[in-house]
Amino acid sequence: MNDHAFSAPERQAVYRAIYERRDMRHFNGGEVEPELLRRLLMAAHHGPSVGFMQPWRFIRVSAPALRQQLHAVVEVERIRTAQAMGEREDDFMRLKVQGLLDAAELLAVVLPDGREKHIFGRRTLPQMDLASTSCAIQNLWLAARAEGLGMGWVSIFDPLTVAEVLGLPAGAEPVGLLCLGPVAQFYDRPMLEEENWARREALADLVFDDQWGQASTLFAEGK
Amino acid sequence: MNDHAFSAPERQAVYRAIYERRDMRHFNGGEVEPELLRRLLMAAHHGPSVGFMQPWRFIRVSAPALRQQLHAVVEVERIRTAQAMGEREDDFMRLKVQGLLDAAELLAVVLPDGREKHIFGRRTLPQMDLASTSCAIQNLWLAARAEGLGMGWVSIFDPLTVAEVLGLPAGAEPVGLLCLGPVAQFYDRPMLEEENWARREALADLVFDDQWGQASTLFAEGK
Repeated sequence: MNDHAFSAPERQAVYRAIYERRDMRHFNGGEVEPELLRRLLMAAHHGPSVGFMQPWRFIRVSAPALRQQLHAVVEVERIRTAQAMGEREDDFMRLKVQGLLDAAELLAVVLPDGREKHIFGRRTLPQMDLASTSCAIQNLWLAARAEGLGMGWVSIFDPLTVAEVLGLPAGAEPVGLLCLGPVAQFYDRPMLEEENWARREALADLVFDDQWGQASTLFAEGK
Repeated sequence: MNDHAFSAPERQAVYRAIYERRDMRHFNGGEVEPELLRRLLMAAHHGPSVGFMQPWRFIRVSAPALRQQLHAVVEVERIRTAQAMGEREDDFMRLKVQGLLDAAELLAVVLPDGREKHIFGRRTLPQMDLASTSCAIQNLWLAARAEGLGMGWVSIFDPLTVAEVLGLPAGAEPVGLLCLGPVAQFYDRPMLEEENWARREALADLVFDDQWGQASTLFAEGK
């Protein structure tokens, strides 16, 4: 504990958002009030960004025909991914992506053009623009969970096709299609864990001391 | 409001973490209790991940010589970045990166080797591993803020040199050096804003409707 720590109930609320956030694929239609949507976007806009470049743009997809088109783009890639999976093809195809049609809101997240002029923290790691934008999306995700809304981040699409569909300028890149809105219920555990697609790793296996592969004493017996 | 929404005080706590989180460069030494550090790492480990691949590894740097070495690696790149900045070189050099020496904890975040076998959500967007890991880091950042600890994400380094220093296997990539620990105070606004490096964009300029460049009605007068 220290002077800058939040109160115990506040800390618990932050952890609650972190632990109860889910990548949702099942939505209940409905709507998101404009005021609430602005609040969520403002939370995203307060993500950290390398050199304060704020490399996030959001396209709110409202036109039904455009949604259908993006859903079709995702379906094409879903089939290609499944084919590339070999023995897990059938398992993968069972995991539908209905959110693009069913979620109250659909937001495309785009890295803007002109990013090459930002070299602060990016000269050797240009991908930090995506890192910043991902942190912004996580803010949105956690705020949405606190507001009782589900969100899913779809990355199963051909970026060039999505760029064309959304009229992006050269140099801009779509990095996610966010399905957002009311849900009947949040999964108790990550959906892919519930579906036995994969298991959560033991944290102790992911943390090393000083050198790769050296088990951390943080997780040693009795610590 | 809906059935799944957190209580008003809980929602406020989540927004408080989002709005009061800062990318810190000034640290006060001290220490982070092992139990607290495990809690923060566990929060990171509950980030979302594409295909549940959990592509985050953490190397806790404790050896003083190793810290010095990483600090030197950052200094080399800081000078190279400054030189590449032209007229902003002096401004950039004023922004020291002392966290690597002063922060209670230093964590290197690494994308592991073997990521090519994960194609779920990554066949066309392989960089989604970094996106997932960034979300995990944002969890850690927000949890740290709630616990009263500052964090800074340093990406000013040559990744190949850092990989060598930390003994990473071929295919693994360092994506951040996280400085974490007690701070004297959190900046009121992002440090780069306080230092007049850059300003926060107006959110309305970053949100479009249906097509790139089409101003969103979400921010129209009277909405």
